[in-house]
Amino acid sequence: MHVPISLSVCFVLAATVVAQKPHPCKSPPLMVGRLSLIYPKGEMFVYERFTYDALGKRIRLRAQGVEHNHSFYEDLLMLFREGVVYQISYKNQTCTKKPMDMPFQPIEIPQDATLQSQIILGSSSGPGQGLLVNNWMGEIPEQKAKFYTTFTEFGCLPLSSLYTTDETGWILSSFFDILIGIDDPQDFIPPDFCDTTKPVDNELVVTDFFEALKNN
Amino acid sequence: MHVPISLSVCFVLAATVVAQKPHPCKSPPLMVGRLSLIYPKGEMFVYERFTYDALGKRIRLRAQGVEHNHSFYEDLLMLFREGVVYQISYKNQTCTKKPMDMPFQPIEIPQDATLQSQIILGSSSGPGQGLLVNNWMGEIPEQKAKFYTTFTEFGCLPLSSLYTTDETGWILSSFFDILIGIDDPQDFIPPDFCDTTKPVDNELVVTDFFEALKNN
Repeated sequence: MHVPISLSVCFVLAATVVAQKPHPCKSPPLMVGRLSLIYPKGEMFVYERFTYDALGKRIRLRAQGVEHNHSFYEDLLMLFREGVVYQISYKNQTCTKKPMDMPFQPIEIPQDATLQSQIILGSSSGPGQGLLVNNWMGEIPEQKAKFYTTFTEFGCLPLSSLYTTDETGWILSSFFDILIGIDDPQDFIPPDFCDTTKPVDNELVVTDFFEALKNN
Repeated sequence: MHVPISLSVCFVLAATVVAQKPHPCKSPPLMVGRLSLIYPKGEMFVYERFTYDALGKRIRLRAQGVEHNHSFYEDLLMLFREGVVYQISYKNQTCTKKPMDMPFQPIEIPQDATLQSQIILGSSSGPGQGLLVNNWMGEIPEQKAKFYTTFTEFGCLPLSSLYTTDETGWILSSFFDILIGIDDPQDFIPPDFCDTTKPVDNELVVTDFFEALKNN
């Protein structure tokens, strides 16, 4: 019986070793957090609070930033299933409803991404002193884009993403202060002063994220 | 007796609140780890393993990198107390001893740095999913330089440092895989094939880190 037992131990060990290699993963479907976005070619710097619901394909973004030395504030409710974005201003009690032609992009490591390295930010010498993360890279042929992204090993949480094309130059997104779950489900409900029944103006279709931020 | 007890509780609470504000700190004096260094203006990218001894003012660096599309490997033993740097090649069994006129710069947050923000990389929602860090900025008037640096809250370990002057442009150092302590004390002893008694050639004084790397 020794040989079968040893063999099965070997199989278990082999399975463990295979399992230890990081694999592309999906972030938790419900998250709140913060994000900074640096886009040098567009002379744009944005700091955002986000509420993210991958189940309902909904994102709420409260962004403040600078573009070409002009500062802006945007409060966006993006409902991808309905193909609608609301631009909300509590100060002015105004709300603009626009059609949105953008696919919902879940926060995840694409399946065809390549693991570059696994590293510890800080140290594993003491508790609370380090964070085990994986660095990935990949390409998006249809956008002629490359990306480099870092996610935590435990929890599959995003840390940073560097996206680069010849056209855009590099765009760096850095995530932090993430909590798993949604603290306020009302974030996804348009405020009372939004006329949700109003038909959208199809001449103002929002097709990318920067456009949504800039249309203020 | 209620009032004095309440007051003393208030003082204890106040002291705790004051103590909770992060203060500039020194990294542990003994560390090993890795470092990547990006210096776009010098067209230089370096990946290093380091052994760091702030007590003995000694650094061992094994660096591989690219400068102006030319790749290089350097093994440097920097003894700041003696003002000497050894350039070591095990492959060729050669060793060059050069004088070094550089102050030892301990890994620390300068006392006059300003706290920008305290953030969590990843999340505090689950164990092993996040890292509490502090972002600092400051100036070095004598170098007309600005710096932005991130250290862990617990352990005071370096994560990254962005140094910028008009002359150099920006230089980004990213630290990772740090262990507290020295795994091999022999890292600081020149190998047998180094002639430590040989006087140094004072015409080859090394005055900065990049010079030490480039003199190969």
